[in-house]
Amino acid sequence: MSNIAPWRSAIARGLHHNRSLVYSRYFQLATVKENGRPANRTVVFRGFLEDSNQVKLITDGRSDKINHIKQQPWAEICWYFPNTREQFRLSGCLKIVGSEDNNSILQQARMKTWQQLSDGARLQFAWPHPGKPRVGQPEAFDPPAPHPTQPVGNFCLLLLEPVEVEHLQLRGEPQNRRIYRLDAQQNWLVEELNP
Amino acid sequence: MSNIAPWRSAIARGLHHNRSLVYSRYFQLATVKENGRPANRTVVFRGFLEDSNQVKLITDGRSDKINHIKQQPWAEICWYFPNTREQFRLSGCLKIVGSEDNNSILQQARMKTWQQLSDGARLQFAWPHPGKPRVGQPEAFDPPAPHPTQPVGNFCLLLLEPVEVEHLQLRGEPQNRRIYRLDAQQNWLVEELNP
Repeated sequence: MSNIAPWRSAIARGLHHNRSLVYSRYFQLATVKENGRPANRTVVFRGFLEDSNQVKLITDGRSDKINHIKQQPWAEICWYFPNTREQFRLSGCLKIVGSEDNNSILQQARMKTWQQLSDGARLQFAWPHPGKPRVGQPEAFDPPAPHPTQPVGNFCLLLLEPVEVEHLQLRGEPQNRRIYRLDAQQNWLVEELNP
Repeated sequence: MSNIAPWRSAIARGLHHNRSLVYSRYFQLATVKENGRPANRTVVFRGFLEDSNQVKLITDGRSDKINHIKQQPWAEICWYFPNTREQFRLSGCLKIVGSEDNNSILQQARMKTWQQLSDGARLQFAWPHPGKPRVGQPEAFDPPAPHPTQPVGNFCLLLLEPVEVEHLQLRGEPQNRRIYRLDAQQNWLVEELNP
């Protein structure tokens, strides 16, 4: 597949011009909770799934957002690039790729993503249950290092498949706001909007 | 009222230690759309409403989020401070204070917020309908300056009243994650969580 979406080059430019800021690879992921209220947290961009436009993220299978996503897979990423003063909003469905997923391509992507993590990032998946009352023993947060090539069972790859991407450039004159929408024929349509 | 919530000092510290970054006053606001899917966008922190813990934001009465909020007032702010590597998640209901709101304290706050805006920020409220197909005439984005003390009709103050605030410090050892919850007696309870 060589169907790289037209908004990809704008994101690539954003990443390039903001590469001096490590946190330009962080963005905010909004989901909807079981009670219909929104949840919002910062996550790290892990690149795009090969030969696709799917955004890669990771999460702990024990985290709250797993339950949110199972009930409402729709999500919206808000990604602000400080240097270039531009914002991308990517909306689409999230897919959870856990240890039991038997799609071999996705399972391979999950494994590769695990292997690309730093030791510190991998270690967090061996910490006590995230979001539960704090475990008092400090040694609970100093577990043996997990295997660097075999992901632990609670390591999940998340894939967001955008169907709508809005790009706002605050630096424009006056400002530029553009929306990309995937149509039923899987073509991306672009429209300029009032900022 | 002097009931300043205990999480306020942590936010004040975050703002102080990140004051070199203009965008540390920006955060992401998640809401839920009429179709039950999340929306997420960057907004500017406008301070707290006097004698309260309500977060002030502004928006255009013509923007999509107004309709989202009318249907589902619940929202979550995700606020990441790059210098101190910490995140705040504030959830609660949003209140829209528009031109017709007849609570005099809120109307006064709306007016004061308008007066504190830069000329450029005020001008945007005189631009064509945000989010609609782009108006081709460049002069539409160069309207006469609105009155600097009398807000235009579509200028809205938004107030988020937090009932739950989660504070995550990535710099901790291992990390610190703390949640503040408002109980039925309007007291803030604090709990330490696993990161």
